[in-house]
Amino acid sequence: MSTEKKSTKRGRKEPPVILITNDDSVTAPGIRHLAEAVKDLGKVVIVAPDKPQSGMGHAITIGSPLRLHPVKLIDGVEAWSCSGTPVDCVKMAVDKVLHRKPDICLSGINHGANHSINVIYSGTMSAAIEASIENIPSIGFSLLDLSLEADFTGARTYARKIVESILARKADKHLCLNVNIPAVDESLIRGIRVCRQAYAKYEEDFNERLDPGGKKYYWLTGKFVNFDKGRDTDVWALQHNFVSVVPVQFDLTNHAMMERIGKTYKW
Amino acid sequence: MSTEKKSTKRGRKEPPVILITNDDSVTAPGIRHLAEAVKDLGKVVIVAPDKPQSGMGHAITIGSPLRLHPVKLIDGVEAWSCSGTPVDCVKMAVDKVLHRKPDICLSGINHGANHSINVIYSGTMSAAIEASIENIPSIGFSLLDLSLEADFTGARTYARKIVESILARKADKHLCLNVNIPAVDESLIRGIRVCRQAYAKYEEDFNERLDPGGKKYYWLTGKFVNFDKGRDTDVWALQHNFVSVVPVQFDLTNHAMMERIGKTYKW
Repeated sequence: MSTEKKSTKRGRKEPPVILITNDDSVTAPGIRHLAEAVKDLGKVVIVAPDKPQSGMGHAITIGSPLRLHPVKLIDGVEAWSCSGTPVDCVKMAVDKVLHRKPDICLSGINHGANHSINVIYSGTMSAAIEASIENIPSIGFSLLDLSLEADFTGARTYARKIVESILARKADKHLCLNVNIPAVDESLIRGIRVCRQAYAKYEEDFNERLDPGGKKYYWLTGKFVNFDKGRDTDVWALQHNFVSVVPVQFDLTNHAMMERIGKTYKW
Repeated sequence: MSTEKKSTKRGRKEPPVILITNDDSVTAPGIRHLAEAVKDLGKVVIVAPDKPQSGMGHAITIGSPLRLHPVKLIDGVEAWSCSGTPVDCVKMAVDKVLHRKPDICLSGINHGANHSINVIYSGTMSAAIEASIENIPSIGFSLLDLSLEADFTGARTYARKIVESILARKADKHLCLNVNIPAVDESLIRGIRVCRQAYAKYEEDFNERLDPGGKKYYWLTGKFVNFDKGRDTDVWALQHNFVSVVPVQFDLTNHAMMERIGKTYKW
């Protein structure tokens, strides 16, 4: 058990502080499932957006102020709703709610996939990435089912299993995992695979409409296309009923290209 | 000259299509400076946010529709304002304005630095990254001066020089450069350095206030701290009056950690 690992030198057990956030908002079923799945592994505190923030990526709130309100979600679990983005939630949790860094930050469980290129648009994953920038080990969880009535049974089991194993030893301070869970019955999940992010993207097709005044407006729609045939990718793992785990970094430097550019362009 | 490289097989010259966007909005001086600096290198089309979108990261607009309006900015240059984020602007430009992929996408010139960890929060850089996901070579430009009255002389010279050299040969389709220009007189700029992203972050310190009704609200403020002593970083280059060029990738997989995690955790 993780909590036993957290004994101080004097023998007093200090349960790890587990910060939980998401991008579907504090009222989404997924965050409640995540909190319930891990609440006996430490002291859980929830700070999550007060409204849906899907697709917010790594946005932060600069031009307007933020609000923080206590909410009641689960018995015995401190919870706050924040008017900002998922990344704002992590920043505010550390500075204004916990007044310290949590031992781990969990984000999700997201309603819908965050594999492959989705990691870059996802507020759920950006919250986890923000925590890892702050030297807080973090994990984002996503279930491949957009529905509010999704069955989180398998997702809860695997989320708990992964959190337990990360808490059980000293984690890399920049550890950030992107965990996706296939939307199948738990009995059909074949295990966990450590993967790389598949090269996939969306082919946009804006849906064009006319408002009642005759003026055009557009809805973002698109088709997901996977160009990556690798068997070591998250998309492959999920298609084969594995839970995918992709370690994520915030160093965006393309090191391979650095050398190539230095040789190609004579600036 | 780049345009000469774009000759078709029949000998007819087709100027490259240059899409320009930013995150400071279509009315910011920086975007005008960028367009003026490169407008004779190809057919420039501007699609930029209708309001400031700094710190929007890779946000996209999912829950509400988008608008697009023609605007007049520079003689002879087609320009549109878009109600969405910088990433939305790139998507809409390709699908609804150009009806094709541009030959290059430029973003900026941003009013303020986007070196080191700023790349992850920056709408300017996220627009460039979005283009590179779409196989469009892209460059984000930022001047280390937040002021609306900043002197863009040096930034214009170096932006033009870099764009010209990229257009002059077939670029890597996922090329994405994060270019920062020091805020010094052009005569003091010592040249261009290809760098890696420095490891730096913000130490948050939310500014807490009371509204007229006595309720708390918070402004995000923070101190930038550079932990990276490397001489191969963008922060070092800029401190020494070089223009920094960091090649940026959208594969967030931490490949080194993949192996470590596979060995450490027995899932």
